[in-house]
Order: sequence, then structure tokens, then C-alpha cells
Amino acid sequence: MESSQVVRQMWDRMQDRDWAGVGALLAEDLVVEWPASGERIVGRENFVRINAEYPEGWSIIVLRVVADGVTVVSEVEVPHASAGLHRVASFWTVRDGLITTGREYWTEVGSDPAPAWRSPYVELM
Amino acid sequence: MESSQVVRQMWDRMQDRDWAGVGALLAEDLVVEWPASGERIVGRENFVRINAEYPEGWSIIVLRVVADGVTVVSEVEVPHASAGLHRVASFWTVRDGLITTGREYWTEVGSDPAPAWRSPYVELM
Repeated sequence: MESSQVVRQMWDRMQDRDWAGVGALLAEDLVVEWPASGERIVGRENFVRINAEYPEGWSIIVLRVVADGVTVVSEVEVPHASAGLHRVASFWTVRDGLITTGREYWTEVGSDPAPAWRSPYVELM
Repeated sequence: MESSQVVRQMWDRMQDRDWAGVGALLAEDLVVEWPASGERIVGRENFVRINAEYPEGWSIIVLRVVADGVTVVSEVEVPHASAGLHRVASFWTVRDGLITTGREYWTEVGSDPAPAWRSPYVELM
């Protein structure tokens, strides 16, 4: 399976709550960083469980996958029934068909107020 | 110039406050989206000016550039003397040596509190 396909499959299986299937795409010693919250998740099992136990109501929409050698970046939209609309830009390393590292930048759409000084240069979406 | 090099140069020139040089790498009808704040910047001139007028104290450290055809993703760290440490994951389109679109996910390192339910699965960085 191509590296980009490994990442797409991971998101598809996450949407399906196919947790064994997600785990099958992860290296046992996977390390994922969430810089915004200062959290590091070490090991396949912890990454599967943290996603499986994330409060329900979410879905996964893959917007884009960008692959360059062992590095794959995904842009994913995550609507949530009660927690707003998030997007996550994730930088993955894929080796031999398994995800070995990740660094995920989680953001909430529309959560940051646009400062007044920028108003001459922008349109509001 | 390769697409990845166009993006690296854009960041280098931004660090140098070489605003004419930044503009020379942008299509005149460039469109950049900042989803977190719901802002869209239309046109080379607006994008140059919004960056030039951003309150000073910042620097640019390019962590990674990932290129796949016309799409280039950059991961950039932006320390600021007074506004904390930010990272931005930016998805660019580069055509004929010019950046034509961008979508930038700005995040602040350590800004989101790590919820208690996740503590069994994570290490704090």
C-alpha cells in the first residue's frame, strides 16, 4: 500500500470506529505529538484508545492528502455534534506500510476572533 | 525554481522583511484562507501588507516542507517576543513559480489545556 493510502485508510477506519483496523496501520512504537495541548502519545495502544474514548459525536472528512517520500500530510475536517467544527493538519511518517510518527495541529474553525487592525486586508468567511 | 523552493524562499524573505521579494513569489490574484479566524485575504498586495503590519517581535523557523505536485505544505515555528510560541501548518498551491492559494492553520504551542480524561494515555511535553 502506498504511504498516502495508509494515511487515508487510517482516517477511513477511524470514521468506521474500526479500532483493530486503525491499530493494524500503526507501528507498535508509534509516537504522536499534539503541540497545542503539549501532549505526546507513545505506543499504538495508547493512540488507539485515546481516539476510541474521545467523546462521541464526531465524524471524519478527509480534505486532502499530500505525500512526499516517507512524509504524508493530511488535512481533515472533524464536525462534532456538540464540540464545534475542527480541522486538523497532521504530519505523518510512514515506513513499510506503517505509521511511525505523527504531529497533529488541531484547530477550531472560527474560534479565534479576527483583530480589528487586519480588517482592511481581509474578507470574513 | 521548484515548488518547494518557492515556499522556502517566501518564508526566508518574510524573515528578512523583504516585502518586495515576498510579493514577487505571489500571484497577483492570490487567495489565502485562515480558517481559525474565519479570514480570507484576496490579492498579493493585501497578503504582503497584512504580514508587514503584523506586530513586530516575530521570527520564522521553517521546520519542514512537503511537496506533492502543485501542492506544498510547510510547517513553520514562529516565536514572538511577547505573543507566545506559534506554529503554522500551511497548504500552498504553486503554479509556474508563483504561490496562487494558501490555507494556513495557526496554532499556539501549549495553549490548549490537556483534559483530565486523556491523562492515562499521554505524556506532557
